[in-house]
Amino acid sequence: MGISAIVQAGLTKTRIEALTDGIFATVMTVLVLGLSLPPTIPSEQLEGEILKLSPHILAYAFSFVVLGIYWIGHHNQFHYVKRTDRVFLWVNIFFLLTIGFVPFSTSVLGEYPFSPTAVRVYGANLAATGLALYAVWWYATSQHRLVEKDLDPHIMSLATRRTLIGPAVSLAGIGFSYLDTRISLVLYLLLIPFFIRPSHIDIHFRGGSHD
Amino acid sequence: MGISAIVQAGLTKTRIEALTDGIFATVMTVLVLGLSLPPTIPSEQLEGEILKLSPHILAYAFSFVVLGIYWIGHHNQFHYVKRTDRVFLWVNIFFLLTIGFVPFSTSVLGEYPFSPTAVRVYGANLAATGLALYAVWWYATSQHRLVEKDLDPHIMSLATRRTLIGPAVSLAGIGFSYLDTRISLVLYLLLIPFFIRPSHIDIHFRGGSHD
Amino acid sequence: MGISAIVQAGLTKTRIEALTDGIFATVMTVLVLGLSLPPTIPSEQLEGEILKLSPHILAYAFSFVVLGIYWIGHHNQFHYVKRTDRVFLWVNIFFLLTIGFVPFSTSVLGEYPFSPTAVRVYGANLAATGLALYAVWWYATSQHRLVEKDLDPHIMSLATRRTLIGPAVSLAGIGFSYLDTRISLVLYLLLIPFFIRPSHIDIHFRGGSHD
Amino acid sequence: MGISAIVQAGLTKTRIEALTDGIFATVMTVLVLGLSLPPTIPSEQLEGEILKLSPHILAYAFSFVVLGIYWIGHHNQFHYVKRTDRVFLWVNIFFLLTIGFVPFSTSVLGEYPFSPTAVRVYGANLAATGLALYAVWWYATSQHRLVEKDLDPHIMSLATRRTLIGPAVSLAGIGFSYLDTRISLVLYLLLIPFFIRPSHIDIHFRGGSHD
Repeated sequence: MGISAIVQAGLTKTRIEALTDGIFATVMTVLVLGLSLPPTIPSEQLEGEILKLSPHILAYAFSFVVLGIYWIGHHNQFHYVKRTDRVFLWVNIFFLLTIGFVPFSTSVLGEYPFSPTAVRVYGANLAATGLALYAVWWYATSQHRLVEKDLDPHIMSLATRRTLIGPAVSLAGIGFSYLDTRISLVLYLLLIPFFIRPSHIDIHFRGGSHD
Repeated sequence: MGISAIVQAGLTKTRIEALTDGIFATVMTVLVLGLSLPPTIPSEQLEGEILKLSPHILAYAFSFVVLGIYWIGHHNQFHYVKRTDRVFLWVNIFFLLTIGFVPFSTSVLGEYPFSPTAVRVYGANLAATGLALYAVWWYATSQHRLVEKDLDPHIMSLATRRTLIGPAVSLAGIGFSYLDTRISLVLYLLLIPFFIRPSHIDIHFRGGSHD
Repeated sequence: MGISAIVQAGLTKTRIEALTDGIFATVMTVLVLGLSLPPTIPSEQLEGEILKLSPHILAYAFSFVVLGIYWIGHHNQFHYVKRTDRVFLWVNIFFLLTIGFVPFSTSVLGEYPFSPTAVRVYGANLAATGLALYAVWWYATSQHRLVEKDLDPHIMSLATRRTLIGPAVSLAGIGFSYLDTRISLVLYLLLIPFFIRPSHIDIHFRGGSHD
Repeated sequence: MGISAIVQAGLTKTRIEALTDGIFATVMTVLVLGLSLPPTIPSEQLEGEILKLSPHILAYAFSFVVLGIYWIGHHNQFHYVKRTDRVFLWVNIFFLLTIGFVPFSTSVLGEYPFSPTAVRVYGANLAATGLALYAVWWYATSQHRLVEKDLDPHIMSLATRRTLIGPAVSLAGIGFSYLDTRISLVLYLLLIPFFIRPSHIDIHFRGGSHD
């Protein structure tokens, strides 16, 4: 039995999804550990200290939603994946590596919300995650490697474009951080309504639907 | 194939439940990290220092049980859910966001058990979680959107009322914190016997049972 | 449909096992966070500082194995459980609450390995976990509540005795801590060979096997 | 019913895999907690402080990939395992114990990347993990204990050799740490290309494939 057969049998879609779900669940929970109060503060200063955590709380909520977006994106891609191989497995592990980094870049952004460095660290993490997700999709679909032969090329290119918007916006955010970090933060924030509400692409998808 | 079909296929009830179980398991475990001793204390002061942690230990146990209540509540709701869609997915992710916040509000309450601010932070977290769970239920059941057409409207309204009692009591707790935080704490504590023992509503449910 | 039917449908054995596995996996991992070096130490003192962590490392390894024992014990019990109900669910959540406490009592024992207080905190945690596991078994089997009617009463009483040995030894360890904490530590350590190697009871079990 | 039957029924391959996946997911996530900035640094020093974290970031990425390698290795082995028994279960738990230790040795290596002690702690962890994985394989396959009778002895010995390369290289790294820790680090790094790309052994596997 060949190694590729072993990989397919032992590390099917289901196994990769189980590791993925476990890592997402833990990362989404570990985010909150970035929120902590100074060791000993008088009770009457508690309200002020918690208000000072506002950027951390916003960074927590923002990253939680972003992780939700990537979790959904990953699963939507996996819906079309029918086979796995060794390279695909490692591209996925690299994607998870970038996901596992999110609690660190979130805590940096929460601590220094307007610092150019913090904004770039966060943007670089978002861009790396988005590009890794794109790599997962590209590897699976190019030459219909791991997807059905009859997968509509239109869906493929639409999903590609949609996946690449995240990294594009993140890299733009990094660029604008040299001008004004508030522009970068607004750009990052715009990712959320873009991905949550059904977009033009979704409508197109829906329009092309025959089921 | 439409995006809604993708979501249904790739992110079925089962997938959302897997993420939910993973997040609950991790949050319930991460709670304990709020318990920590000062860095270096002489061995003979250990007992005193651990006794000083009592409010933290009680807050740990209380939050663990509250998370148990919400975990059960979420699963009971999902028993009736037959379909999913994009909005439903996001309402669930918002519910999980409030769950992920519990370790922070628990550690604040454990550190400052009688501080009005701490009591309000904790109550606001409980209220947000309960309202998010209500939103999950409301979205799924209104116009029988994601549940069976023949779901008994009586069950629907009873479950609604039961779900809203948590936020109502939490908001009352926040209100009473302006008077005396001990009243708030007693109110929060009363949620546990209310939800653990079979309530009047449960009895009604049971009475209406035909299976 | 009655609430008990909801609980059975929505929170079957499988769901409780999923939460249990998730909590065990996280607790076993979070244990290692009790191991940490002082913030800044010169490189040449690193070896000495790591050697000073030996009690923490032993406590980590011991607790990891103890959690393994309880995980196996819980699953062995669940093998016989055929139904669930609301009370059973809550007894299980209480069992998980004691499991979730293990990282704290482990870090206390690792920091103060010969302190009577630390030894008692650890022993109390072990005893509570063992008694909670006994409560799970007792509730499931008394009057054959959640197990098959024809479950051999011999197996039931043997499993009961085996489950109660953990708490008995832990409570003895707490008692001896007033004399000499080294006796307590030896008692705790003896639990491992007792539960890992097939015991007299196991041999009996095997003798009574007909499959 | 014999205890071995209980173990087989209650703790099948699937259950052990679920605990394994959960622990891997949590360990891979908890790694990132080793990355933290000093409590209060001026915003303009942030870039410098993050650059100082480079060894930690590399150690994070390296350990993440190593954990990926062991996760794949474990699953490839489990593909051939058809039965479980009590000893096998405990060998697996010991393997997981060494996995759970990785965040600690990673944070030590990240903090003191060229310290001989740190390099040895990390190497010892890698070696212990590799030997534990070998023990899992040896126990399962010797006398075809838990695998199919007709498992090709060629595959068995090839997999054995491949599994032992990790510990061999790690122990060599520990040895070279007495000379120059940079040699050790290069040796550890070489494990990654060795295990990620299909190796001579893989090619042999593939060559011997008849499916």
